[in-house]
Amino acid sequence: MSNAKSLPLLDSAGEGVVPCCPPLDQRPITAEEAETAARMFKALGDPVRLRLFSAVAAHEGGEACVCDISDVGVSQPTVSHHLKKLKEAGLLTSERRGTWVYYRVEPAVLAAMGQLLTTTAPAARAAAV
Amino acid sequence: MSNAKSLPLLDSAGEGVVPCCPPLDQRPITAEEAETAARMFKALGDPVRLRLFSAVAAHEGGEACVCDISDVGVSQPTVSHHLKKLKEAGLLTSERRGTWVYYRVEPAVLAAMGQLLTTTAPAARAAAV
Repeated sequence: MSNAKSLPLLDSAGEGVVPCCPPLDQRPITAEEAETAARMFKALGDPVRLRLFSAVAAHEGGEACVCDISDVGVSQPTVSHHLKKLKEAGLLTSERRGTWVYYRVEPAVLAAMGQLLTTTAPAARAAAV
Repeated sequence: MSNAKSLPLLDSAGEGVVPCCPPLDQRPITAEEAETAARMFKALGDPVRLRLFSAVAAHEGGEACVCDISDVGVSQPTVSHHLKKLKEAGLLTSERRGTWVYYRVEPAVLAAMGQLLTTTAPAARAAAV
């Protein structure tokens, strides 16, 4: 993953990566965390981009080229534009192999966003206050 | 919750509610599902709204009035505007009690959005194809 280090929700932490932010209901998210996370939510806040993101994530092997996911009813330049936006938001990584650029969802990013939206148990919430 | 039926990610299903959409990497999300889910992601795609949403979710008892969450550095009318947007997107419900309107995050909505961002195990993904 050539640009994995730029994934904004993640910090390098020795052996692996750790998500930046706790569940949204555990404690109020900070301004800095909110800037990062809002950028990613905004990138998914467009139906076509969300479909493309899902198409890449669900594609065999967890990666896809533009040629694989052009069935969302928009032109290929529009697809490329949206894929670029998703990449800029840190949701996709890309790699050129031969003629095509292949896009991949970083599972850790998906997990980090999912964690933001996890419902905290009341006990855990109380402990965090 | 007076407006629980309008929560767009949820369908009434007998005793409870079921989320509308499977994990994004399980199968490509449909156009209709994407419209619904993108609206909610878009609502969280603003740093101030995301902080307010988190402030409500993390507040004692899972609910808060404007008076409780006005420390995000914007004016109270702006806070009210953003809370209205979150409500319109189905992320918050509200109830007037006395002087104040109380906002609450519907845990099922948080769970439904979290499920969208769950990473499917490879075996489950293969079975869904």
